[in-house]
Amino acid sequence: MNQNNYLVIMAGGAGTRFWPISRNANPKQFHDVMGSGRTLLQQTAERFSGICPPENIYIVTSQIYADLVSEQLPYLASSQILTEPFRRNTAACIAYACYKIGTINEKSNIVISPADHIILNETEFAKKINICLETAQNTDQLLTLGINPTRPDTGYGYINFENSDNEVKKVNQFLEKPPLENAIEYVKSGNFVWNAGIFIWTFKTFKLSFEAQMPAMAELFESGKNYFNQAGEADFINEIYPKCESISIDYALMEKANNVAVVNGEFGWSDLGTWKSLHEVSEKDDNNNSISGQVLAYDTKNSIIKTPQKLLAVVQGLDGYIVAMHEGVLMICKKEEEQNVKLFVEKAAELGDEFI
Amino acid sequence: MNQNNYLVIMAGGAGTRFWPISRNANPKQFHDVMGSGRTLLQQTAERFSGICPPENIYIVTSQIYADLVSEQLPYLASSQILTEPFRRNTAACIAYACYKIGTINEKSNIVISPADHIILNETEFAKKINICLETAQNTDQLLTLGINPTRPDTGYGYINFENSDNEVKKVNQFLEKPPLENAIEYVKSGNFVWNAGIFIWTFKTFKLSFEAQMPAMAELFESGKNYFNQAGEADFINEIYPKCESISIDYALMEKANNVAVVNGEFGWSDLGTWKSLHEVSEKDDNNNSISGQVLAYDTKNSIIKTPQKLLAVVQGLDGYIVAMHEGVLMICKKEEEQNVKLFVEKAAELGDEFI
Repeated sequence: MNQNNYLVIMAGGAGTRFWPISRNANPKQFHDVMGSGRTLLQQTAERFSGICPPENIYIVTSQIYADLVSEQLPYLASSQILTEPFRRNTAACIAYACYKIGTINEKSNIVISPADHIILNETEFAKKINICLETAQNTDQLLTLGINPTRPDTGYGYINFENSDNEVKKVNQFLEKPPLENAIEYVKSGNFVWNAGIFIWTFKTFKLSFEAQMPAMAELFESGKNYFNQAGEADFINEIYPKCESISIDYALMEKANNVAVVNGEFGWSDLGTWKSLHEVSEKDDNNNSISGQVLAYDTKNSIIKTPQKLLAVVQGLDGYIVAMHEGVLMICKKEEEQNVKLFVEKAAELGDEFI
Repeated sequence: MNQNNYLVIMAGGAGTRFWPISRNANPKQFHDVMGSGRTLLQQTAERFSGICPPENIYIVTSQIYADLVSEQLPYLASSQILTEPFRRNTAACIAYACYKIGTINEKSNIVISPADHIILNETEFAKKINICLETAQNTDQLLTLGINPTRPDTGYGYINFENSDNEVKKVNQFLEKPPLENAIEYVKSGNFVWNAGIFIWTFKTFKLSFEAQMPAMAELFESGKNYFNQAGEADFINEIYPKCESISIDYALMEKANNVAVVNGEFGWSDLGTWKSLHEVSEKDDNNNSISGQVLAYDTKNSIIKTPQKLLAVVQGLDGYIVAMHEGVLMICKKEEEQNVKLFVEKAAELGDEFI
């Protein structure tokens, strides 16, 4: 295993779309959403077990989740858990982690991964990550993983690449969540993949590219050299974070840089961004139900039932519903109407903090 | 108030059709099913507050519910709570209460009422009960309340009466739950009412009629004279109960006796025998939903939502469903399919006594 390989897991999200399972005090990435016995964060870390040494794993999260991270990944030193004073989008989060790692090891190769995605085929995933890591070391490119699209989903960003026989393809353009007619075109053309938000680069390439595209923010983090991995790190971060632009790494870097390449694959990826996507990647019973909990289902199909193990849930006559119960909240909602979850959370917040 | 008026409330039922609200350890009659602030048992007792003195109220129930009765009707002396060693249908239950009351006061006029019915118009109800009590004292008739039928319900027993201008009408025949074509005929004819299972008689008339129709059981209870209201009462009951035929008072007495009369009325009666009937008599929101609990309902109509006050329940896209949660059990079921509740309870029992 290359001792210069590092992993940064972004674990600060609130995951509100998975309410009521995902909650402010305990969001999605800290749950065993798939019923596998491991939380999404644990699955993410373990996915890189053959790629990067455990002492090279860094988790960026909020202060309020630091204990959860520590409980779920007990082998991490506290210095490996980076806490943001507040959410400031992905550019600041990634810059913090990369500049800190670069201070420790300027020869570092860094993989950035969200904490809450699912990869069903981990062997294929590792293969592609290793291609990216190798390419990152041997070239000056910013790598990203592309997911071969299986449908014209308008909920994802797309990457347009130059087709070739090489595993590593030059990226022409990043395209944000498109209208349906564009998405249909993209999928048809064969030159577009989904942007999974998984990035691979060397610290050196990242630093040069970030300086070029985001000079102000780069300067802020560059000035941290003397604070990272020291007692003053937290104060330093608290001071510079408010000065950082709130911008995604896609906008800040990937869309503007011209040294971006993509490695495409199919490995049963899902960002678990919706209840529907959970249904798609979950094991289903004969009636296409994804069930976890002590559930008796009658005349029920195409549904997700997720209830506490201690509760007995009896459901009858549901087709295409989400039934989710967690910590004092029960939600029953048509799968096709799950965009309403945002509204539910707003209304729930009015009734009490304990419900969100 | 006539000091000879007595009330017997039958409160030993299991109410399984209202599962999961109604449970073995705490069945329907002990719940505030209507959200009125009073349980069905309390409502039943209070309904007779102008008719019979509180010291003349007797509750027949199972030993395991004696404490619940005592908590809910704290003004009752323990001698007013009659416990059956096991359920033995209504004839034994009623005979026990009537013979015991007759031993105390042989001039007693007795009303028999189930514990778990709803009467929305209590003034009208009291008026009819008083007519029955007066008739019972002045004649040798067994009185019953008849409910003017509003639909050809096949879930009720019917009473065929001789039409006349009198409030008190002679009963020709009791008819058990009929097939739909018969029920349609009954409702059309105008000479049929629903049997509400509420009976009114004097002890004297009951005793004579019971001796005539059920001589063996009458003899058993007659022999209790020296035990009722004494230390030996429980032992006596435990000894004779197994010898009693398990038969309803309708079969045992009302269908066979020829001194039966009915007083008909409309007073918003429901036996709350089904979730649907609860929906019918409950207050509804603008979308015909009967809701109790902390519930946010979206695009939901014709449904019953009954969840614990502490829980936040968010429901979306339900039409004609029952959503009921109580003590570790959640049930979601189409209103039209509630006959399945029996099956649910059987399956739940296999998973643990705590679920039934």
